[in-house]
Amino acid sequence: MPKTLLTIICEALAAEPLERLLAGVGAHGCTLFRVEGEGSRGLRTGGIQAFANIQVEVIAAPAVAGQLIERLQLKFFSKFAMVASETAIRVSRQETF
Amino acid sequence: MPKTLLTIICEALAAEPLERLLAGVGAHGCTLFRVEGEGSRGLRTGGIQAFANIQVEVIAAPAVAGQLIERLQLKFFSKFAMVASETAIRVSRQETF
Amino acid sequence: MPKTLLTIICEALAAEPLERLLAGVGAHGCTLFRVEGEGSRGLRTGGIQAFANIQVEVIAAPAVAGQLIERLQLKFFSKFAMVASETAIRVSRQETF
Repeated sequence: MPKTLLTIICEALAAEPLERLLAGVGAHGCTLFRVEGEGSRGLRTGGIQAFANIQVEVIAAPAVAGQLIERLQLKFFSKFAMVASETAIRVSRQETF
Repeated sequence: MPKTLLTIICEALAAEPLERLLAGVGAHGCTLFRVEGEGSRGLRTGGIQAFANIQVEVIAAPAVAGQLIERLQLKFFSKFAMVASETAIRVSRQETF
Repeated sequence: MPKTLLTIICEALAAEPLERLLAGVGAHGCTLFRVEGEGSRGLRTGGIQAFANIQVEVIAAPAVAGQLIERLQLKFFSKFAMVASETAIRVSRQETF
């Protein structure tokens, strides 16, 4: 069954509220990458936690991904440097999601 | 020509058998990310190798990706915390794959 | 509106010319991952900068992604170990791209 890969690139400061949001909608199995990035709010270096960027990837049912995007738009986009994108994927062992 | 991006998220312990599997089917050019993740078997921290997670990405012909998924299901899913997903991509310089 | 995720896997040596190329076409918001990889030119270890691999991800309008691929083929593929791929994605907060 098709799933959605929800990819969130944001400042590391957003990690904890983001994890709470994901847990709240029952999205399990997120993966966190520590990345370096240059976004529209300027270069963020990886050295200092407050200015580091992370990429969080979540595999979810398309409807859950849509709900998450809505919540991000309402609650996160005004507070954090953040971009979210959705990619259609096919998952093996999807019974765990 | 369309290719498949095969993305495997798993515990780092699976890295070596996974590399042998990839080499065995002639899948070249895998990329390994060290990640932090929370899956259905509980949080895995990046500190200790045995409990760390990796994400391995492999670009392959769709048929080869399908074979790899089958082998993962048969030989890896019962032994390792692991999720595999497929994404349709278009590759430049595909003569190297 | 659909966007393209342009994913470039290359040796770290290519990072600076790549960033100049991206800035030159107005592609903002790239994300850089330090990865380990094994490609068609042989294993690259993460220890030494000159031999490390990076993955650079750029969200762009499909036309811009196409231009970038062309420039990479003309100017980068002969000089650096590099593979580029395109994935169709949907972006939230796309006004920043």
